[in-house]
Amino acid sequence: MPVTLSSIRAAARRIADGVLLSPCPESVALSELTGARVFCKLDNLQCTGSFKERGARNALLQLTAAQRRRGVIAASAGNHALGLAYHGSLLKIPVTVVMPDYAPLIKVTTCRGLGAKVLVKGADFAAARAHADALTEKKDLTYVHGFDDPAIIAGQGTMALEILKQVPRVDAIVAPIGGAGLIAGLAVAVKALRPEVQVIGVESSATASFSAAMKKDRPVTIPRKSTLADGLAVLRVGDNAFPLARDHVDRVVKVSENWIALAILRYAEREKTVVEGAAAAPLGAMLAGKLPELKGKRVVLAVCGGNIDPAVLSRVIQRGLVADGRLCRFRATISDQPGGLAALSKTIADLGASIRDIAHDRMFSGSDVSAVHAICTVDTRDHAHIRALHRGLAKAGFPVVKG
Amino acid sequence: MPVTLSSIRAAARRIADGVLLSPCPESVALSELTGARVFCKLDNLQCTGSFKERGARNALLQLTAAQRRRGVIAASAGNHALGLAYHGSLLKIPVTVVMPDYAPLIKVTTCRGLGAKVLVKGADFAAARAHADALTEKKDLTYVHGFDDPAIIAGQGTMALEILKQVPRVDAIVAPIGGAGLIAGLAVAVKALRPEVQVIGVESSATASFSAAMKKDRPVTIPRKSTLADGLAVLRVGDNAFPLARDHVDRVVKVSENWIALAILRYAEREKTVVEGAAAAPLGAMLAGKLPELKGKRVVLAVCGGNIDPAVLSRVIQRGLVADGRLCRFRATISDQPGGLAALSKTIADLGASIRDIAHDRMFSGSDVSAVHAICTVDTRDHAHIRALHRGLAKAGFPVVKG
Repeated sequence: MPVTLSSIRAAARRIADGVLLSPCPESVALSELTGARVFCKLDNLQCTGSFKERGARNALLQLTAAQRRRGVIAASAGNHALGLAYHGSLLKIPVTVVMPDYAPLIKVTTCRGLGAKVLVKGADFAAARAHADALTEKKDLTYVHGFDDPAIIAGQGTMALEILKQVPRVDAIVAPIGGAGLIAGLAVAVKALRPEVQVIGVESSATASFSAAMKKDRPVTIPRKSTLADGLAVLRVGDNAFPLARDHVDRVVKVSENWIALAILRYAEREKTVVEGAAAAPLGAMLAGKLPELKGKRVVLAVCGGNIDPAVLSRVIQRGLVADGRLCRFRATISDQPGGLAALSKTIADLGASIRDIAHDRMFSGSDVSAVHAICTVDTRDHAHIRALHRGLAKAGFPVVKG
Repeated sequence: MPVTLSSIRAAARRIADGVLLSPCPESVALSELTGARVFCKLDNLQCTGSFKERGARNALLQLTAAQRRRGVIAASAGNHALGLAYHGSLLKIPVTVVMPDYAPLIKVTTCRGLGAKVLVKGADFAAARAHADALTEKKDLTYVHGFDDPAIIAGQGTMALEILKQVPRVDAIVAPIGGAGLIAGLAVAVKALRPEVQVIGVESSATASFSAAMKKDRPVTIPRKSTLADGLAVLRVGDNAFPLARDHVDRVVKVSENWIALAILRYAEREKTVVEGAAAAPLGAMLAGKLPELKGKRVVLAVCGGNIDPAVLSRVIQRGLVADGRLCRFRATISDQPGGLAALSKTIADLGASIRDIAHDRMFSGSDVSAVHAICTVDTRDHAHIRALHRGLAKAGFPVVKG
């Protein structure tokens, strides 16, 4: 079945009673930061923490009675697995999920808790997928592709129908691109209903499989690289999703890891909301100045999910503070005589920075054995403060060796 | 003016067009965790990130024309300062805020950004307050107390009117207690309208000034201790707030730092929302088993604010993971010969834990110079997994020296 406005509308009717109509509030803080009027479509508040429930439920509800009885299967290490497991359990459809070995333990446990049969098998996604394919055949299950099944794409498109109702005067919708299922669904709906509304995709620079496909005008496989936006780490966009996105999306930009980290921090600090890397990519692109044409416009950001590992969130916040110039580390040479550290600490305090941690490096401090390096981690106000700190330290006789 | 249902209703009408009617959604995840039907009143989504705007706006709107012209002043290092600065700016009332020296730079900057005159003065809150009192007199300003002004208490009480509308069949409301302004306002409104609804207060064990006041039946000053819930670190509850809370609150419990940290983690991980320590205290008390009578009941948690320093949030998440048994550190004795670390690493991996960091301690490892301590930080599943890890390490010849 092709993905059209009518299949998306049918999906919306089908899933309405099982998927949260997520809020789409205006954000004063993000508007201030970006110069646009920013609204956030908070699909991170879905029950399993992502938009993937939309497609999953839509696909499950279109199975035949026989297919429902036999059950469905998918290879996924992430949100698709959660969405499928949850709605399979609600609809009493057996769900099998094959997760690669590297799948976070918490997702394995959660999927099992939702009643899915979870097999952890395969060193990478392709191996997990191969295993799922074999099982599909052997057990006569229905394979539900995470981003390329037309029912999945149509389900994701329901987000656009909600956005157009919630923010009637929207000028642009910015959404992340991984396998391109979400952006394809959004773009088909938007261009059918309100062609003047811009649909903008954002890729992680580390995994720009959509841009690669655009160059060759067909999905191609890109090399694996790690990214904070693990939800976007799809090495080949979908065969169905690609032409839909290509024909309906207005513009695609890439965003680097630092801006994704900073956007996660901004959501936590200013919006009080927890988002995963993929969901932070659109704001990251705006903060990075990649979308200057949106200044002054009504912009909806698709906050597609909030399933970030807390340990990762903790590190990302620190990384965001570094990107922000609010946390910095430097090496300063001090004398190994008593009082060397005291003098350095006082200088740092006098320059308005606050010491979080100091370590000594005696072994790798260069040729002067009476000098040691103090490796300092300090809280600062911003990048200008860091520059002033470096200047002040040099002036006080503590040249900064390495940033 | 006394704080009554009618002054709270008047406050609600007064502030309606300037303060967010914050959402109060049911939380599937927190309900599952606590065994109650949990709803979260999300005042962390207020523009300046806390409920303090309610009282601040209500107080500002009751000034005389002359008072408005001359302006207001308060000593505050936190949310009251932000709320006052923001609504002062909206209402074109000059606001002066005196912040103690330890006020986080970000709050100083934000208050200034909101147009308030900020003086950073005083080594502690009392000194800042003394300075503010002197200025109040000298410049003929109106001092707005953060939690004891009747207009402030009535303003905070508006939260209860919203809750009773949003969750009509609520059985209990759980709110944090710092200076007792919020709980006093809530309790007065609830007991006037729906006396059968329980109002439960939660203090930080580190700063239990309300319990101390209950013992003496008057506000007393308790010693300063640090707490994650910095918003609750009020050393003496309010003279007006105390009798109101004493007469209308059903029950008060204390919660320790670890449970506050764990609750902050749960909000981030399960609710995708960022809360400050004070706001996490009610959930912390439930998680700690302090409120077993709420099982199966409809419970609204007052999520009073989200202004947690990102660096603190980052550390709290890690601390929450430790409390959860999902991150642990131990010292194991290994041989200083080549291969010692490899054998330890393999054992840890075989036991299903994942190494985050390993450091060596050669200098302080005891008398055997051929042995070193490896200080290992590893990801684990839960406390049972940690116990199994310790047993497995001992069995493999790596006795764990210190937890």
